[in-house]
Amino acid sequence: MTDQSLPTDAQIAAALASVAARPQVTEIYFVACGGSYSIMMPVQYAVDRHGKTIAGHALNAGEFVARNPARLGATSVVILCSHSGTTPETVEAARFARAKGALTIALTTIPGSPLDQAVEFPVYYRHAPKTFGADHSPAVLARLTFGILGLRDGCVLAPKLDTALAKLPAIVDQAIAAHSDRIAAWAEAHKRETVIYMMGAGANHATAYSYAICIFQEMQWIHSAAIHSDEYFHGPFEVTDFDVPFVILRGMGPSRVMDDRAIAFASKFSDRTTVLCAEEMGLGAIDVAIVDQVEHMAFGTILRVYADKLADSRGHPLTVRRYMWKMDY
Amino acid sequence: MTDQSLPTDAQIAAALASVAARPQVTEIYFVACGGSYSIMMPVQYAVDRHGKTIAGHALNAGEFVARNPARLGATSVVILCSHSGTTPETVEAARFARAKGALTIALTTIPGSPLDQAVEFPVYYRHAPKTFGADHSPAVLARLTFGILGLRDGCVLAPKLDTALAKLPAIVDQAIAAHSDRIAAWAEAHKRETVIYMMGAGANHATAYSYAICIFQEMQWIHSAAIHSDEYFHGPFEVTDFDVPFVILRGMGPSRVMDDRAIAFASKFSDRTTVLCAEEMGLGAIDVAIVDQVEHMAFGTILRVYADKLADSRGHPLTVRRYMWKMDY
Repeated sequence: MTDQSLPTDAQIAAALASVAARPQVTEIYFVACGGSYSIMMPVQYAVDRHGKTIAGHALNAGEFVARNPARLGATSVVILCSHSGTTPETVEAARFARAKGALTIALTTIPGSPLDQAVEFPVYYRHAPKTFGADHSPAVLARLTFGILGLRDGCVLAPKLDTALAKLPAIVDQAIAAHSDRIAAWAEAHKRETVIYMMGAGANHATAYSYAICIFQEMQWIHSAAIHSDEYFHGPFEVTDFDVPFVILRGMGPSRVMDDRAIAFASKFSDRTTVLCAEEMGLGAIDVAIVDQVEHMAFGTILRVYADKLADSRGHPLTVRRYMWKMDY
Repeated sequence: MTDQSLPTDAQIAAALASVAARPQVTEIYFVACGGSYSIMMPVQYAVDRHGKTIAGHALNAGEFVARNPARLGATSVVILCSHSGTTPETVEAARFARAKGALTIALTTIPGSPLDQAVEFPVYYRHAPKTFGADHSPAVLARLTFGILGLRDGCVLAPKLDTALAKLPAIVDQAIAAHSDRIAAWAEAHKRETVIYMMGAGANHATAYSYAICIFQEMQWIHSAAIHSDEYFHGPFEVTDFDVPFVILRGMGPSRVMDDRAIAFASKFSDRTTVLCAEEMGLGAIDVAIVDQVEHMAFGTILRVYADKLADSRGHPLTVRRYMWKMDY
């Protein structure tokens, strides 16, 4: 899985060593845009759950600069991500944070990019969305975050995370193979839909958001929204009807009770409810203490295969855009 | 505006006195569900912008309990809200937080309700959604939050907030009157829409969320999502087309640059873009140091009049539900 030419492991170690040398850190800002922002929410979730002295905040990069957090400064670590390293808002956020004295770390795939050059600690990751690897961006973010939590808050989950990340590639490959028939059936059954809702809770809500905005809205021009499994019952569930499609992510962590409630309701009143179940996908092989931190990575990978097949059935490749990269905006 | 029988002011003072007596507070959790959750996001925004030693976290109540934040305890203030005081997830969250030693404050309209009884400091608010008052829930939350920031972080904005809240009722009433014709035209023009997107940034993104989930999805069975004005350019904008309706909130604070960019793009490619502009609504009369903290209250109020008129044009009253309160779920 790992291309030894990528210096990712050494870069993560260098970034963590620098955090270790800064004992006054009290918060981590996770800053990016769009799909890269969506992978910041699970690491805020990680800090919320396991950070005893450190606070975590995931923010869109433009919002981060506009909001100008009062605590941003020498007590802050700011972790950013941009695939190309050129996203203007994210590059500006990196410069803004560094000028305020924060320690800046950025994930990117392009050495020499503006983001790579703007931060003190770049970390390169591999992008291969239909497979999973410990050098993919969601995994690298988790390794950085649990590394910091271990250094600063005595959190002992980093080794469990590493074990889980080592098991995940095979689990995901097997789940994708096992889902082959239902992926094809789902794609055909949904090829004429104009709206598809995503739903999840905990870290999986981030994956629901990613697929709502990056796959359905951006790459398929299908209306969508990410609904939180509990928020569903406080408004959105009224839009449920026999012909309204939902894709619901059923986790194995503490938010599963919310997912199960949403699945029971949506399945009763919509004939077009699809459930992706972490347990059925083989995530039971992951330590229960860490599974809620990694299952979104499995969901994200298998969902990309669903998306590819939907694109085939619709004759609308995922690469098609009408505005993005085609004009100034 | 203020019913003197409501003990709101004294209740706010009592809650703040208790926070003052707890100098170890390092974070505020803002916890609720649905529409009540949506009004928690602007106060997280306030703490992000102005809390020098305090962190703020807005979380859905079910998510809060499942996530079980590591820092939740004697260093925490937990502010909750439920209109009826009976929302099960919110009542459970209050008990959960109090059992962990947090200081609990809850907004509700029903004395004696389970939430009222679960917390140490209840604060009663008035619900009158087509007018604005300093005893309405978003204003009470802001008063509590800036009160805490003043006590603990030396933030001097509380008097400016009070001045702004005193000016807002007349500003909002005048804006609603001035918008009368365009509200009627918008409602007629949108009565056959099956999808209406909401957009905003900063604290106004919360109002976009509230109207997407509580008005369009819940009360009108119209598909919707709240799009952040900057996130729009990182996925959602690809769904824009000549016939896709957007309602965009144009603020006067630091996020206005993001709103203007979104408005320019959406207006160019959709014939169905509606802009609500805080400046045009008279918010220029509010101190620029606080306007970004209160404009969402003006937007929320005028949008409710838009919603009422849309309901009339569609013959679908805002009170109609098919599931909520009608069955167990």
